[in-house]
Formats: sequence, C-alpha cells, structure tokens
Amino acid sequence: MQTIIEDLNWRYATKKYDTTKKIPQDQIDILIEALRLSPSSFGLLPFKILMIESAEIREKLKPYSWNQSQITDASHLLVFCSLREMTDVYIDQHTELVEMTRSLEKGQLQGFANFVKGKVNEKSKVDQYEWNARQSYIALGILMQSCAALRIDATPMEGFEPEKYNEILGLNDKNLDATLVCALGYRSEEDSNQHLKKVRKPMSEFLEIV
Amino acid sequence: MQTIIEDLNWRYATKKYDTTKKIPQDQIDILIEALRLSPSSFGLLPFKILMIESAEIREKLKPYSWNQSQITDASHLLVFCSLREMTDVYIDQHTELVEMTRSLEKGQLQGFANFVKGKVNEKSKVDQYEWNARQSYIALGILMQSCAALRIDATPMEGFEPEKYNEILGLNDKNLDATLVCALGYRSEEDSNQHLKKVRKPMSEFLEIV
Repeated sequence: MQTIIEDLNWRYATKKYDTTKKIPQDQIDILIEALRLSPSSFGLLPFKILMIESAEIREKLKPYSWNQSQITDASHLLVFCSLREMTDVYIDQHTELVEMTRSLEKGQLQGFANFVKGKVNEKSKVDQYEWNARQSYIALGILMQSCAALRIDATPMEGFEPEKYNEILGLNDKNLDATLVCALGYRSEEDSNQHLKKVRKPMSEFLEIV
Repeated sequence: MQTIIEDLNWRYATKKYDTTKKIPQDQIDILIEALRLSPSSFGLLPFKILMIESAEIREKLKPYSWNQSQITDASHLLVFCSLREMTDVYIDQHTELVEMTRSLEKGQLQGFANFVKGKVNEKSKVDQYEWNARQSYIALGILMQSCAALRIDATPMEGFEPEKYNEILGLNDKNLDATLVCALGYRSEEDSNQHLKKVRKPMSEFLEIV
C-alpha cells in the first residue's frame, strides 16, 4: 500500500483551478459519502456540509475569502458547518438513530445518552463549539486523502470570514457556524505551485519514541 | 475507487485488541509518514507524535485514560502533542526549512514569514493552541483512513486527562500539550463492537446543496 504515501505526496493546496473541468458526479458522491463516514467523537458527526453550486453565492463569498480565485473557479465548493452548541436534543436524536439502526428498543441507550450529555455539559459553550469544530477537521483529513486517491485537487481554506459566511448562507438561526471551506477540482496547468517541492519537518523532529 | 468507502465502512473504534498481534514495522513507517505528510495551515505541522513503546509508561497512562484497556493492549500507542503556542521562532524555522527545501535564498520568504506571524499574533494564546490542535485532527483523519486502507485497527481517544499525560510524558517545559491519543493494532475476536452496524445520520441531513 505504498500508494498512501504516493497519494499524499501528489496532493498540494491548489492555487489555480482549470475552470473547464468538472468533477464527475459519481466521484463527488464518493467524497461526500467519505465525509459522512468520518469518525467523530461518540459518532455524533456534529457538522454538516454545504455544497455551494450557486455561482451567484460563490461570487458573494469570494470577497470574504481573501478574494481567492478558487472560491469561484474550482469545480465544487464545500463549506463545513459545525454545530455551535451540542444540545441535549441533538444527543437524543443521535441516540435514537443508534437504537433504530441497531434494532434496539427505544430507550435502551438512555445510559449512553446521559453519559454523553454529562460530558458535554462539563464544557462551556465555546468549548462545545471547539469540540464540534475539531470533528470537522477529522473529516477534512479524510476528504484530503480521498481526493488524493481519486486524483482530485483540493484547497482547504481557513482564510475566510466566518461571520460573513454565516450571514450569506443563513446559518445564524440554524445553530451552525462556518468552520472550514474546501475547494475541489482540477489544477490548472498554469498553477506553478504544483511544481514546488513539498516541505515537511524531518522525521527526527516529528516523531519521538518513548 | 469504491475502496475508499469500503475502507471507511470496515473501520470502527476498536474496544478490545488482540494482544498477541504486532503491526509490522514497515506498516508503522507508512502510517507515521502519512501523518508527517498531513496537510496543515501554512504547512506548519504544529504538532509532534509520541509513540509510547515503554510498557511501564503505558501502564502509568492507563488510569488517566478512563482505564481503557486499549492503552496497554494495543500493538502501538500514539499521542498527538500540539504546540501550546505558535511562536515567531517556530515560524522562522519553518520558513528557513521552506527556503532550504526549495533551494531559495535565505530571507527570500521573509514576506511569507511576516504574513504568518501577523495572522498568528491576531490570535490569543488560547486560540493559537486551538488552531494547532485542529491541525492535529486533520492528521488524525489521515491516520484513520490510512489504517483502514491497511486493515489496521485504531481507536482515536479524547477520553484522557491531558494534564496527567503532560506530566508523565514531560511535555510541560516543551511547549507541547497532549491533544489526542490513538491506539493501533488488530481487533480481538472477542470485541463485539466490530459486529455493530455503523451509525450515520442520513445524507439528507448531512449534505445541503445551495
């Protein structure tokens, strides 16, 4: 499986997309399903994915994304929206989903639900959001590797104004917050960044055996 | 590449490991290299990996990990340690590494370094840590998918006491903080969790097209 390393060496944060190329729907379906299958704490998957197809909305988002061309030029644009708060209602719905999926009786996992609620309620609202946001980042890792395996280019972005995104995408009254943006598509031949050598700190500084 | 979906469906958070099975060194090497190749903001890779080989230290960590058996029973145990603060010195070292790797003259990327420092210094120390921690979570996603591709089992864990980990692993004077723990190995036949149906919210709740 040396392909894992080849895949990860192949990828880079794409600066300029080929605007003529579209990712086929069956490959988009794989990427979104991979995101949905991401591991998350207690399986809560405390985020959702907005896929921005509207060219008009992509134009609106661009000035609040450091004017990066990827926002409008990439084949697809995803916004990872994390739950602002982890609520008891959300945990109850998740618990019911677990019970249903695993053919358990309703209420059988009440102990689990109570345990999760206890853990969540130890956290401040700010920490709840951070916890949710971190789970989005796991999914981003899964997306990056899945894209690389499929030879689809990607640009993960933190350089945007979440408040403006929230406003434009109507997230403010939905308990959601724009955490991450990711453009997907195919690199332009003109993107000189693709030729740059990948930079990583040496293994001796990265790994320590104890 | 339907294998991406198969891989992700194959994995689960392993509860009980087969204590007789060890991951071969060449596969561990792939996993650690995959972690090192993880995407991160500005390529800073603001974390390091501790691989805990000492059985004695693993025993010491266990009571501070909700007494989970994976801590001592799994083939390998990784602790993701994020930088507590992002310092100017760290950014300068990274910038020099970029210059060296890409055969640029020293100082040529001073503008980049200044830009990153400006962005970092907008953040409080707490937010710097959160930012660093989030990058660790991207790497966790990469690790989860790489493990699944290699049919290596894994248990990502947030359920541990970071202060105790920091103390036992001597991280307090190293600008590092234990962010995540991940056990790696092979599932025990007795682990009944492997037979549970995976639970994910339906696509209609997860994805929204705008």
